[in-house]
Amino acid sequence: MAVQPRALNPQTLPAVSHTGYPEPYRTRVLPREVRAVGDALGLTRIGVNLVRVLPGKASSMRHWHTHEDEFVYVLEGELVLRTDAGEQILRAGMCAGFPAAAGDGHHLLNRSAAAAAFLVVSNREPEDTAHYSDPDVDLMWSPPQARGRMTRRDGTPC
Amino acid sequence: MAVQPRALNPQTLPAVSHTGYPEPYRTRVLPREVRAVGDALGLTRIGVNLVRVLPGKASSMRHWHTHEDEFVYVLEGELVLRTDAGEQILRAGMCAGFPAAAGDGHHLLNRSAAAAAFLVVSNREPEDTAHYSDPDVDLMWSPPQARGRMTRRDGTPC
Repeated sequence: MAVQPRALNPQTLPAVSHTGYPEPYRTRVLPREVRAVGDALGLTRIGVNLVRVLPGKASSMRHWHTHEDEFVYVLEGELVLRTDAGEQILRAGMCAGFPAAAGDGHHLLNRSAAAAAFLVVSNREPEDTAHYSDPDVDLMWSPPQARGRMTRRDGTPC
Repeated sequence: MAVQPRALNPQTLPAVSHTGYPEPYRTRVLPREVRAVGDALGLTRIGVNLVRVLPGKASSMRHWHTHEDEFVYVLEGELVLRTDAGEQILRAGMCAGFPAAAGDGHHLLNRSAAAAAFLVVSNREPEDTAHYSDPDVDLMWSPPQARGRMTRRDGTPC
């Protein structure tokens, strides 16, 4: 008998409002609703989350991954995608992809008056590090010398 | 300048009706519409496809993967999920997950009168082999001695 269900309605999963970011980045994303869809289904090689971004909030600080591809599918509302290509509006039914090691940071901003939601799927790679693109965001995620931890760009703890 | 777009509407991608299955399995899935979303976005570490299953057709023969997690999100219509747990109806907004090496084969059947569509995302693992669960389906995908090829269960070519 499987511990995890094979199928589910992701909206029924508990929503968590959490981030590893310190201030002042923390309040740029929180409060939010993250539902750990992949964990609930017993997936370990890919990560799947349903993320609901409130008006005025961002999905994350602008970043790119060294070893993880990221795929986003918008389910609800309207989000602004920021990358090196500029800004692009994504509406429900649109998707975006961020190849590992592309060096082009991305994030999604909710500048609308309503909540917006997306699915995000990545491969899970223990070697992965995330770099943050905006000059004012002094963060690094999971650098080689501090795996699974958020640090400053110089590797010191946050 | 990126070769691939960062974002797109997956419905605008060309639909391909193709399978590596020989008969009699071929006509159990074809015709169908598969849109290579991940390829269009330049993703290589995860595979992302939008699959539209016509009434009376199956998403695939019932199978499980040795090294790839599989995540399915239903976008349109109604599909019957078959696993060791039996049958379960999945409607738009529901999802399913199939952990690598679980040994519990799955597929999706469209027994409705309308087309049904889903997104499917996997990690991409060259070591992966797919095993087929139903006794009457004498297939194996990408066994160690025939990588990237469909064979019979005994490893001989189809």
